[in-house]
Amino acid sequence: MLYFENDYCEGAHESILKRLAETNMEKLPGYGGDKYCESAKDKIRKACGCPDGDVYFLVGGTQTNAVVIGSMLKRYEGVLAAATGHVSLHEAGAIEYTGHKVLALPQRDGKVSAGAVADYMETFYQDESHEHMVFPGMVYISHPTEYGTLYSKKELKELSAVCERYRLPLFLDGARLGYGLVSPDSDVTLEDIARYTSVFYIGGTKVGALCGEAVVFPKKAPAHFLTMMKQQGALLAKGRLTGIQFDTLFTDNLYMEISKNAIETAKILKKALTDKGYRLLLDTPTNQIFVILENRRMEQLRESVVFSFWEKYDENHTVVRFATSWATGREELEELIRLL
Amino acid sequence: MLYFENDYCEGAHESILKRLAETNMEKLPGYGGDKYCESAKDKIRKACGCPDGDVYFLVGGTQTNAVVIGSMLKRYEGVLAAATGHVSLHEAGAIEYTGHKVLALPQRDGKVSAGAVADYMETFYQDESHEHMVFPGMVYISHPTEYGTLYSKKELKELSAVCERYRLPLFLDGARLGYGLVSPDSDVTLEDIARYTSVFYIGGTKVGALCGEAVVFPKKAPAHFLTMMKQQGALLAKGRLTGIQFDTLFTDNLYMEISKNAIETAKILKKALTDKGYRLLLDTPTNQIFVILENRRMEQLRESVVFSFWEKYDENHTVVRFATSWATGREELEELIRLL
Amino acid sequence: MLYFENDYCEGAHESILKRLAETNMEKLPGYGGDKYCESAKDKIRKACGCPDGDVYFLVGGTQTNAVVIGSMLKRYEGVLAAATGHVSLHEAGAIEYTGHKVLALPQRDGKVSAGAVADYMETFYQDESHEHMVFPGMVYISHPTEYGTLYSKKELKELSAVCERYRLPLFLDGARLGYGLVSPDSDVTLEDIARYTSVFYIGGTKVGALCGEAVVFPKKAPAHFLTMMKQQGALLAKGRLTGIQFDTLFTDNLYMEISKNAIETAKILKKALTDKGYRLLLDTPTNQIFVILENRRMEQLRESVVFSFWEKYDENHTVVRFATSWATGREELEELIRLL
Amino acid sequence: MLYFENDYCEGAHESILKRLAETNMEKLPGYGGDKYCESAKDKIRKACGCPDGDVYFLVGGTQTNAVVIGSMLKRYEGVLAAATGHVSLHEAGAIEYTGHKVLALPQRDGKVSAGAVADYMETFYQDESHEHMVFPGMVYISHPTEYGTLYSKKELKELSAVCERYRLPLFLDGARLGYGLVSPDSDVTLEDIARYTSVFYIGGTKVGALCGEAVVFPKKAPAHFLTMMKQQGALLAKGRLTGIQFDTLFTDNLYMEISKNAIETAKILKKALTDKGYRLLLDTPTNQIFVILENRRMEQLRESVVFSFWEKYDENHTVVRFATSWATGREELEELIRLL
Repeated sequence: MLYFENDYCEGAHESILKRLAETNMEKLPGYGGDKYCESAKDKIRKACGCPDGDVYFLVGGTQTNAVVIGSMLKRYEGVLAAATGHVSLHEAGAIEYTGHKVLALPQRDGKVSAGAVADYMETFYQDESHEHMVFPGMVYISHPTEYGTLYSKKELKELSAVCERYRLPLFLDGARLGYGLVSPDSDVTLEDIARYTSVFYIGGTKVGALCGEAVVFPKKAPAHFLTMMKQQGALLAKGRLTGIQFDTLFTDNLYMEISKNAIETAKILKKALTDKGYRLLLDTPTNQIFVILENRRMEQLRESVVFSFWEKYDENHTVVRFATSWATGREELEELIRLL
Repeated sequence: MLYFENDYCEGAHESILKRLAETNMEKLPGYGGDKYCESAKDKIRKACGCPDGDVYFLVGGTQTNAVVIGSMLKRYEGVLAAATGHVSLHEAGAIEYTGHKVLALPQRDGKVSAGAVADYMETFYQDESHEHMVFPGMVYISHPTEYGTLYSKKELKELSAVCERYRLPLFLDGARLGYGLVSPDSDVTLEDIARYTSVFYIGGTKVGALCGEAVVFPKKAPAHFLTMMKQQGALLAKGRLTGIQFDTLFTDNLYMEISKNAIETAKILKKALTDKGYRLLLDTPTNQIFVILENRRMEQLRESVVFSFWEKYDENHTVVRFATSWATGREELEELIRLL
Repeated sequence: MLYFENDYCEGAHESILKRLAETNMEKLPGYGGDKYCESAKDKIRKACGCPDGDVYFLVGGTQTNAVVIGSMLKRYEGVLAAATGHVSLHEAGAIEYTGHKVLALPQRDGKVSAGAVADYMETFYQDESHEHMVFPGMVYISHPTEYGTLYSKKELKELSAVCERYRLPLFLDGARLGYGLVSPDSDVTLEDIARYTSVFYIGGTKVGALCGEAVVFPKKAPAHFLTMMKQQGALLAKGRLTGIQFDTLFTDNLYMEISKNAIETAKILKKALTDKGYRLLLDTPTNQIFVILENRRMEQLRESVVFSFWEKYDENHTVVRFATSWATGREELEELIRLL
Repeated sequence: MLYFENDYCEGAHESILKRLAETNMEKLPGYGGDKYCESAKDKIRKACGCPDGDVYFLVGGTQTNAVVIGSMLKRYEGVLAAATGHVSLHEAGAIEYTGHKVLALPQRDGKVSAGAVADYMETFYQDESHEHMVFPGMVYISHPTEYGTLYSKKELKELSAVCERYRLPLFLDGARLGYGLVSPDSDVTLEDIARYTSVFYIGGTKVGALCGEAVVFPKKAPAHFLTMMKQQGALLAKGRLTGIQFDTLFTDNLYMEISKNAIETAKILKKALTDKGYRLLLDTPTNQIFVILENRRMEQLRESVVFSFWEKYDENHTVVRFATSWATGREELEELIRLL
C-alpha cells in the first residue's frame, strides 16, 4: 500500500530521534523552562530576525489556533478567516469553544485579500447596529493555505497594512510553513512573515517533528500567555520534547532543508499527473495536489494507494488530495506514478 | 418626529398596565412560581394545542435564543441557521459565547428550505473528516423572518420532516410571531407551529408587552431548564412581570387582536409606497417594509421620520426599513404617507 | 397566609407604575438610548457624586453579576468572593459559565476583610507555581451581605486600599443597597461607595422596582460594555422599562425613602422575636432576620407564614429567614408577631 | 546539582525511545487510528479487565482532566473534588474555562471520603433553593493524591457505592497511577480501579513516557469523545506518538516494573530523613515526600539540590517536596542523603 494521504504519516526526522536519545537522561526543569527550549527559541528568533520576540512551543495545530486566538481576542471580538480556513471548518468548533465567532471572509483558492478585509471593516463600521454584532478582532490566514496556495510578499504586505489601519492583529497559521518557504514560487521569507504579522506559528508536526508548533510573537506575547496555555491544557510538562525538536530543526537550517523534498516530489507528481491527462483542481506551488478523479478510477486507485477525499466535484467526479512530505521516498513516488 | 424605526418603541398594551396595577400589591412567590405564570402557561398550552407542553418566560429575544440553543445542543454541536438569521448576525456572538457555532445555511428572503437542510446533512455525513467538524445539532428559523417573510404550512411541514429524519430539533424564533399569525397571507396557526417544531417562542416585547418571550416546548423541556436559565442570568426574580403580561395577552385573544393593527397599517403603507413609485426590496406579508431609497431622499426623510438603516444597496441607494406595530396610529401613518 | 419569604414578593412602588402609565405611548429609541434612561443616569451620577461615571441598566442580580464580572476579568483571572457570596453559591454557576473561577475567601457573617484579601494575594504571589493557578482579578463583596450585615466606612476604605495596592477592581453587589444605606447602624453613603469601589450596582428588584439593577462605574465602564451586555442576553430592547423605573426611584429621594420601611419593620420584628425568646443566628442591621427555630415550631409556623429555609442548624433546629421590604405593611407585621 | 524536584525531569524509558526509532518510518494513519494505538488499547483493556471498555490517548494531565470533565458533565453540573485537588488549584482554571465549577469537598491528606460525598449530596438536595445552585455531576479523585496518599480498596468501593447511589460518575486522575499500584502499602489493583470508577487515566508523563495519558472508560466513552478531544485541541495528529509509548509500557509489565524504582528510592529517602531527625508533613506510601524544613536549612540545601516549594508552614519553616521517579538513580540518592 502506498501512502500519500497526508504529510504526517511518518514519525520524526532521524536527527530529532537521535537528539532525543542523547539528551534523554538529562535532568531538566519542566514546562518549557529548560535549556533546549531556550536554545530553540534563540535560534528561531534569529531565523525570524526578531531578537526581542517571544516564542512558545505547543503540541498541535488546532490547539495552537485555539490558544492564540482565544488569548488575543477581547471577549466581544471574533476572528476573520477564509470560509475555507482550518479554523472555520476542521477544528470541531475549537474557536467557538473559547467563546469566539469565526467571521467568514470571501476567499479564492484558500486566500483572503487585503481588499476583502477592508470591505468587511468598512461595512461593519457603517452598519448602524454594529454594536449588536461581533467585532472583528483579528485576521487569520494560513500559509500555505488549506489548498496549498501561497501569499506573495506583496499580498502579505497589503494585508499587514490593512490590519494595521484597523488595529487588527494578523495571525498566520504556518502548520506547513516549511513547504511554503522553500517553494521556488514563493518570494516570502521567514523574516518577511515576522515583519508582516503580529503572531504566527512554525509547524513542526507536518515538517519533520513528532509533534510541536512554535508560536512566534515578533514583538511581544500577550501577558500571561503561559497561564493561558495551561488553562487550555496546552502546556507540556516535559517541555523538552518540543524544545529539543525545534532546537534540532533550527540547527544547520534543517527545517528548510528537509522541506525541499516535499516540494521536489510534489513537482514530479504534478507533472506526471498532467502528463497522464489528469485534471488538477488548481495549480498549487507546495506539497498538496488536488486532483479531480472520475469516481470509478478513484475506487480503483484506492485499492493500492491511500489518499484523502477532499470534496464531491459532481455526480461522477470527486476531488482527492495527494500530499508529499519531508519523508516521501523516490521509490514510492515512482511506484505511484506507475499506478496512475 | 415620526417613528417607524421598529416595533418596540412604545410601552405596553394598556390592558397589561392595568393588570400590573391591579395585582401590584399581591404577595407572590418568585422565579415564575406564581399563579399568574401558571395561568398564562395554561392559556398558552391551550392556544397551542399542546396540553402537556412546558412553557417558560424569559425577558428578551437574544437571551431566549442563547438559553434555548445553549441548553438543547450537545457541546460538540452547532445550530444551523440562515446566514441572515438574528442568531447569525445581530446578537453580538451570544450563541458563540455559550460555546456553540452558528452554521450558515443558504437562504432566500430570510428563509431556509428543507432541501438546504437535507443537503447540509448529506454533505456533512459524506465528508470523511466530519468527526473533525462541528456536528449540526438543531435548526433555527425565524417566523416572521428578519426580512418579514413567512413560512407556509407546507414549508414548515417539510422542514419538520427533514429535522425528524436527522433527529435535529427545530427551533422557531417567534419574536414577531403575532404579526406572522394574523397575516392574511399566512396559512400557519399556532397549533401548526406547536406540531411542527420542537421548541418555539411567542414574542411579547415586539407585540404589546413591556418585555417578555414565552418559550414553548410542545412536548417537554430539557431537564433542569430553569437552572440553565438561572445560569445564563435569564431567570426573573419577579416572574409575575412576565406571567401577568402573557396572562393578559392570552386572555380574550388579545395577542392576535392587537397584532392585526400592524398588518393593516403595513398594508396601507406598502400601497402608498408603491403608488408613489418607491421600490421595495422584497414584498413582505408582515409588518416590516424594506424600501430602496436614493441616498439624498433618505437624508431628507430623516429630518422628519425615524426609520432603520438596513444595508447599502449601491453607491447611490440604501435599503431602509419601516416597521409598524400593534401601536401604530392611523394619524401618524397618514402623516408619514403625506411626507413620502 | 403571611409572606415574609423575601423582599421581592410585591410588584413595584406605585409611583413607578404611575410613571410607566404616563409615558406608555411615547415613542422612544430602544436599548437604553431614550431620554428617561439619560435622565435616570444623570440623577444616579449626581447621587453618587461621580459626574463622569458610566451607568447601565440591567434586569436582575445574577445577570448583573455575570455581566460585570465576565466583562472586567481577563480570561486567566477569577473573582475573589466570600465563600457565602451570592456568586459563589446561588447563581447556578453563572460566573463559571463565563469561564471564570470564583475564588473563595474566608468570611465572617458574610463579610470579607482587607486582611483576608491581602493574605490571599501574598500567598498567591509567594507560591512558586502561581502561573499554574487562577490569577485573582477582582474582589466581589455584597452590601448588605447575604447575611444582612454591612461594611463600615472604615472597612470599605481598607478594602479599597488593598485592592488598589494589588490593582484589583472592587465590585460591590448592591442588590439590597437601599436597605444598607438607610440603616441607622451604617455610616456608609452612596458617595462613599462610589469613592471606594470600581463598580457597584444599585438594586431595584428588591427595592421597589418591577425589575432592574443600575450598574455604576464611578470612573469609566470597560470599552464596549453595551456589546458585552448584548452578548450575554442582558440588553433590554425596551430600555425605557428600567430607565423610567430608576428615574422615578431617584426623583425626590424615593429610593432612600421607601427603603426605610424595611428597616423599621425589621427592627420591630427583631425586638418581638428576642422578646419572645427566639434565638437569632446573628444580629443584623438590615431587612433580613435569621432565626434558629426548633423544627416542630418551624412546621407549625409554616401553616400560616411563608418564610425561607436557610440552613440546617442541628438535628432539631433549622435556621430560617424572615425578610421585610419597602412594602411590608404594619398590619401584617403585627399579625406575624401575634403568631410567633 | 541534584534533581528531586518532580517526577518528570527526565525523558522516556529507553524501551520507548527504541520502539519509536524502530517504527519511525512506517506510514501510519493519523489521529489514533494506527495499529500501535490499537495494540496499546487492547493491552490496556486486558490489564484493566474490561474487554469492552474504551481507551483514548491524550497528551497531558490538565488537558485530560479538562476533556474528561468537560465531556461528561451536563452544562448545569460541576465536579466535586478535594479542595486540594489538582483540578481545584493547579490547572489555571482549565475546568472553569469549559464552563464548569469545581465544587470543593473537605479532604484529609488529599483524600475525600464516601461520607463527605454523601453529606454534600444530602445537603444539596435538602436545600430548597438547590435549583439555583450548581448541580454536583461527578466526583474527581486522584490516586495517588497530590499528597502522595492512596485510597484503600475499601475506600474506593465505598466511594463507588455512594456515586452509584447518586448517579455520579467517579473519575480517578491517575497521573501517578503506576506509583500507587506498586506501593507495598496498597491493596488496589488496576482491575479494582476499572471496577470501581466510571473513567480514569493511566499517567504516562510521570511514569516513563515523554508525554501521554491513557484515558480508560471501563464501560463506554461518551458519544463523540474524539470530536470533543479535537474541540479542546487535545487530538494528536501523530497519534502513534502516544500509541507506541503505551504499547511499550504495557508490554511485559513494563509500566509496573519501572514504577517500583520510585517507591524503593522514596522509601530509602524517607528513612534517611527521619533517621536524621527531619520532620515529615505526613507519611506517604508513594514517591512524593513532604518535609518541613527550617527556612535557613532550606536555603542551604537549595544550593546543591533542586526540590519543590510546597507551602509556608510557619514563619520559620517551609514545607518542601522531594520526588523520586522511575528514573531516580541510586548514586544521586546516596549523594542527596549525604547532603541532608
